[in-house]
Amino acid sequence: MLTKSQFVPILKIAQFLSAGCHVKVLLADIHGFLDNLKAPIELVKYRAEYYRYTITALLKAVKVPIDKLEFVLGSSYELSSEYMMDVLRLASITSERDAKKAGAEVVKQTENAPLSGLLYPLMQALDEQYLDVDVQFGGVDQRKIFALAKDALPKLGYKERAHLMNPMVPGLQGGKMSSSDPDSKIDVLDNADIVKRKLKKAHAVPKQVEDNGILSFVEYVLLPAGSLKYGEPKFVVERRDAEPLVYNNIAQMKEDYAKDVLSPQDLKPAVTAALNELLAPVQQEFQANAKWQEIEQKAYPPPPAEKKKEKKVKNKGTFHPGAKKVEAKPDGHVEGKDKATVDVGTESGEKTIEGLTLEEKN
Amino acid sequence: MLTKSQFVPILKIAQFLSAGCHVKVLLADIHGFLDNLKAPIELVKYRAEYYRYTITALLKAVKVPIDKLEFVLGSSYELSSEYMMDVLRLASITSERDAKKAGAEVVKQTENAPLSGLLYPLMQALDEQYLDVDVQFGGVDQRKIFALAKDALPKLGYKERAHLMNPMVPGLQGGKMSSSDPDSKIDVLDNADIVKRKLKKAHAVPKQVEDNGILSFVEYVLLPAGSLKYGEPKFVVERRDAEPLVYNNIAQMKEDYAKDVLSPQDLKPAVTAALNELLAPVQQEFQANAKWQEIEQKAYPPPPAEKKKEKKVKNKGTFHPGAKKVEAKPDGHVEGKDKATVDVGTESGEKTIEGLTLEEKN
Repeated sequence: MLTKSQFVPILKIAQFLSAGCHVKVLLADIHGFLDNLKAPIELVKYRAEYYRYTITALLKAVKVPIDKLEFVLGSSYELSSEYMMDVLRLASITSERDAKKAGAEVVKQTENAPLSGLLYPLMQALDEQYLDVDVQFGGVDQRKIFALAKDALPKLGYKERAHLMNPMVPGLQGGKMSSSDPDSKIDVLDNADIVKRKLKKAHAVPKQVEDNGILSFVEYVLLPAGSLKYGEPKFVVERRDAEPLVYNNIAQMKEDYAKDVLSPQDLKPAVTAALNELLAPVQQEFQANAKWQEIEQKAYPPPPAEKKKEKKVKNKGTFHPGAKKVEAKPDGHVEGKDKATVDVGTESGEKTIEGLTLEEKN
Repeated sequence: MLTKSQFVPILKIAQFLSAGCHVKVLLADIHGFLDNLKAPIELVKYRAEYYRYTITALLKAVKVPIDKLEFVLGSSYELSSEYMMDVLRLASITSERDAKKAGAEVVKQTENAPLSGLLYPLMQALDEQYLDVDVQFGGVDQRKIFALAKDALPKLGYKERAHLMNPMVPGLQGGKMSSSDPDSKIDVLDNADIVKRKLKKAHAVPKQVEDNGILSFVEYVLLPAGSLKYGEPKFVVERRDAEPLVYNNIAQMKEDYAKDVLSPQDLKPAVTAALNELLAPVQQEFQANAKWQEIEQKAYPPPPAEKKKEKKVKNKGTFHPGAKKVEAKPDGHVEGKDKATVDVGTESGEKTIEGLTLEEKN
């Protein structure tokens, strides 16, 4: 289940692919399972499969080549003897305090936090080695984990990797995106009406550029998507009683917005249209693909009606699924040298642990 | 390398075997390796092999049947996918705080303690399931780990095991046994002269029964050994100017000691003689077994002379090797029901982490 938060890293992955990089996307099923012991591993595996479809479709929608796109299931290597021995080795040279600090922005910090939250940064570091990548890509909230990885791998005799980070963008309601508020983000399968409704409800104070979820979405999703699809960044805002505003960079848009030349009333329909245009081919492919639909049903089965009231917001963050990792290798390089990495973690986990299947599927 | 501290659990294992139990001894090579990343895994494997020889010889020396004695290398199952998945599952439902509390007496508690120390209690709990035993046996210092195991296994869908504990006995110098003080304990390969010297130096305040390492050794090692060998507990103290004192229980000995009827001067030679009698067949077997001697050399290679001054007392307790586990199954029981468990952990680790090979081998 891609949320708005996932659009940003996926567009960055699209740019990596467009630049000729070899990208490995980690489908972190083990983490997803660990996040919620009550969710059977089968469900998590369906979700991993669902992401594979969704991410691929979105990348195809922005017209980037996907022949160097690879998906790797965490369970395909994270339970191997070699990997687990390395987890134990790393655990024996990493202090509790350092592990805790590394996960501070990703793993929920409570007095009674589960131990798995301390293993999470260690596993994420080792993933760089086991995915055989040169660079790991993730949100800026991952930076302390990246710092630990930078420090840890050489201690185990492995090479230090580079790290790339995307900024954290505000939600449609302003402030942090919230998994418990479906209106704060867009689902890839949200149809045109839902997108329209969500944008209408979106928080957008006139002239206020900071913490503006809609402008951020244009900056990190719609402008890059346009650039990839049409070879140039271009964002058009139709106006009722004036000429359309045509932008090819975010700086000009922000300037106009600050001056109220670009009003929220004009911006919202423009974003709605661009977003629906981006999502249309993805949703068409979904409608045409029975297998994907079947996976979607299995990955997010509608909860029994009587269970509706029971669902709780579960303790989040045990193994926070927000990590993003992809291997990006500039074209023509041989033997895995100079590869770059990114990863798009288990959104599956996020769905699961928040217990919001119902709302998010609306 | 068996130290005096190991004599106590091994005599208990001897009693389990004598009672018809099936005993599995865990040779915790993974833990030993993790204790000291600088010690190559090969060294640890040699040490595990060395323990196998030593424990077996000592059990044969007290004439118990060893056909139901089994040694299991930790690495034979602790790196399997199933095991590691369970470590992760358990880590996700065990809080840092609870893991820390469980290891409080076993794992060194410092501000900067390594994360592996928190995994240790979890692995020890899972070992019960993976060794397929009914009971785990260990020192009373393990009781909080046992409590965690009792609580944890049912949460993973495994049956709760029973736990047996031996008391912690004082060292020959009184107080806690110390790995850095070779005089505080007896090595199974200590020859008659060394044993005599160590006993001579042993701390033994006349009339003082508490914290008396020599009386404890009689109580938990020599009396049970006599009982196993000759069918009855019997401990004889020769005296220069009086009739020998003959004991068949520790209570009478303590009473006499408190009254100074049994003096330290008379007790020490009696203990020396009984101990040397116990060790003689073990050392004879060692002298006759070229393979065991070779393993001993490989397990504890003499350090280069110039390194002598460099050795440091290393941070102990990362994966404390003191756990004892043995499966003890009363005779005639089928299908693994009503089995009892014990384990004699990685003394290897203790040697390694203390860096005292030289002294202990004197």
